[in-house]
Amino acid sequence: MSLIVQKFGGSSVADAERVMNVARIVTDTFAKGNDVVVVVSAQGDTTDDLIEKAQEINPNATRREKDMLLAAGEQISISLLAMAIEKLGYHAVSLLGWQAGFETTSSHTSARIKRVDASRIRRELDKKNIVVVAGFQGLSKYGDITTLGRGGSDTSAVAIAASMHADLCQIYTDVEGVYTADPRKVKNAQKLKEISYDEMLELATLGAQVLNNRSVEMAKKYNIELEVLSSMAKASGTIVKEKTKMEKMLISGVAKDTEVARVSVTGIPNLPGLAFKMFSKLSAKDINVDIILQSIGHDGKKDISFTVAKDRGQETVDCLKDYMENLGAAEVLYDDNVAKISIVGAGMESHAGVATKMFEALYDAQINIQMISTSEIKVSVLIDAVDADKAVSAIHAKFFD
Amino acid sequence: MSLIVQKFGGSSVADAERVMNVARIVTDTFAKGNDVVVVVSAQGDTTDDLIEKAQEINPNATRREKDMLLAAGEQISISLLAMAIEKLGYHAVSLLGWQAGFETTSSHTSARIKRVDASRIRRELDKKNIVVVAGFQGLSKYGDITTLGRGGSDTSAVAIAASMHADLCQIYTDVEGVYTADPRKVKNAQKLKEISYDEMLELATLGAQVLNNRSVEMAKKYNIELEVLSSMAKASGTIVKEKTKMEKMLISGVAKDTEVARVSVTGIPNLPGLAFKMFSKLSAKDINVDIILQSIGHDGKKDISFTVAKDRGQETVDCLKDYMENLGAAEVLYDDNVAKISIVGAGMESHAGVATKMFEALYDAQINIQMISTSEIKVSVLIDAVDADKAVSAIHAKFFD
Repeated sequence: MSLIVQKFGGSSVADAERVMNVARIVTDTFAKGNDVVVVVSAQGDTTDDLIEKAQEINPNATRREKDMLLAAGEQISISLLAMAIEKLGYHAVSLLGWQAGFETTSSHTSARIKRVDASRIRRELDKKNIVVVAGFQGLSKYGDITTLGRGGSDTSAVAIAASMHADLCQIYTDVEGVYTADPRKVKNAQKLKEISYDEMLELATLGAQVLNNRSVEMAKKYNIELEVLSSMAKASGTIVKEKTKMEKMLISGVAKDTEVARVSVTGIPNLPGLAFKMFSKLSAKDINVDIILQSIGHDGKKDISFTVAKDRGQETVDCLKDYMENLGAAEVLYDDNVAKISIVGAGMESHAGVATKMFEALYDAQINIQMISTSEIKVSVLIDAVDADKAVSAIHAKFFD
Repeated sequence: MSLIVQKFGGSSVADAERVMNVARIVTDTFAKGNDVVVVVSAQGDTTDDLIEKAQEINPNATRREKDMLLAAGEQISISLLAMAIEKLGYHAVSLLGWQAGFETTSSHTSARIKRVDASRIRRELDKKNIVVVAGFQGLSKYGDITTLGRGGSDTSAVAIAASMHADLCQIYTDVEGVYTADPRKVKNAQKLKEISYDEMLELATLGAQVLNNRSVEMAKKYNIELEVLSSMAKASGTIVKEKTKMEKMLISGVAKDTEVARVSVTGIPNLPGLAFKMFSKLSAKDINVDIILQSIGHDGKKDISFTVAKDRGQETVDCLKDYMENLGAAEVLYDDNVAKISIVGAGMESHAGVATKMFEALYDAQINIQMISTSEIKVSVLIDAVDADKAVSAIHAKFFD
């Protein structure tokens, strides 16, 4: 007998029919002799409806009250799922975040889980109940309802799995697993059987948002085996774990991120510490810089280019313009018609020539590389946005065909 | 400085505009230097919407899960009201039933309040917060969410007032107070300035459902002064308290109840204990019998007539038919074209002739009386349903014009 944690997102429980579908998955797992804890998000549009109600009354409500409001969403979905499980002839009990033992920090709307006291869940499992837990929510030390912010339900599921030493944590979503590239865009995109935590983290960062990063980090820390799979298709998904057996596979995926922009500052006087000061300005505003390229320009002056998230682009330019004019830099240039294409794979560490193979694929496709960045398990290049899909296909074909 | 508890029902917070209206009433009270605790029901249709969702999935869901589902309704309304209060520039904090300290029995969907530990409410008041509490809900000793059943939010408000020794508990509703008769039907119906707990209890039983009976009983027990008033009209309402000063007013109201039916069993053999056995059958099915009339019929046999709630009428007849056939009673007759008209007033206790005055009014209006029942502060008669409104007007005119 195993202990299995299953997590279902908002679209998986959007209406009565889907709730019944989830109930069947859950009870099938239970009927095979497993203990089952289910973590559920709020139903499809509930969260949006609640936010609209709040907007109408007070767009500047305190975050404490926003949390109180939004947490009602999972309260509805857990009780409905428990009812659906009862309908199928099994015993179920729904638990709110605080009842399930979620202790969080008190930073409302983006709280972090401090501890899960799973004693109530354990008692309910001992009574042969299927336990349905509200994801996304917890309780602060002041006794106030908190929410975990974006992707919080994934984290809730992994936290329960970690605290209860579950054998498996299944994250049901609307894709069938993790693919070597976006299957809607790249023919021959393959579903991975396995992927390591680190690879998954890199992929998530690159915009392939299958799993929330905080949940993968927590799974890695507590060595919880995750499975990403679809609540609609009856197929096994992708296992995320520490070491994968797929030594032969060099890379696990090709990812595209078009939510980036390139900023270039030209003609910076060649004085020590200027780059440091410039990036300090940005980090003070919580703007994350990704790929950085520095080149010596004419007259011994420097050009510095870097990428930022597109939605912080204008802010970045404004911040730098104020600062660079004082220093006599020439220009601040901005381009958001760019895409970052990355290959990710733990295999790179032990295999030379992976980056070369990627560059060769781009050269064959006549795609110009603007910037390059590498890490131990990732190579990223910045290219024209218009070439993005062609680049992904070319690179994917080079490695997988 | 006083401590005032204010309760608003579901229609008072049905949409954003009404929530803002309630926020203005609450903050006006606070601005006058009072501590304010607000108890709110779920918004207008929320409860119906939630019940519909549950029906679609499992009409026979356990009562525990129904409570979990329904309690989300007040969670939404309290956070929205807190946001509205914040919008007006005041500090508010919303509290769920369990956060506000409501400990209840564990009989889900109709739990009773065992205790209110108001320490959290007190702490929030000390911080100069307006405290918004979810009515209708609490927590069982098993740590499960419970609801109090019909009219539960009134009881929640009175329970807080009792536990905190509040100076006043205001129940805002969609009528302006308690009237001497239904103001939509009887001209000259007068709003009462005061009414005693006992009179209010009798009126509620008679179908004038301004206040839930459990809340009035609790107010009487802890001597909490209640005020019934409208959230729409800016007028003072009716005060409900132990002793009223209105010695001169014989009666406080004329009420009509058309949700009754008369059942008659004729030709019962004149043996001891038969009536007792017959009514035991009914009470075993939780059928409440109201006015009872027993008469000696022909041949020394008995006729027994009584009234029951109309919606239990058929069940009553079926139950008695099975039983009476065994005993050889003649017939079970049923009539639901009847109405019960009552006058209520603490003044009756010390004034003779009140019932006579009522009968005289009915005689003047040529209305036939089928049955009569009296208590210390109430006289009820059963008449033809078609005469009901005429009877109320005639009696009201006799006492008040």
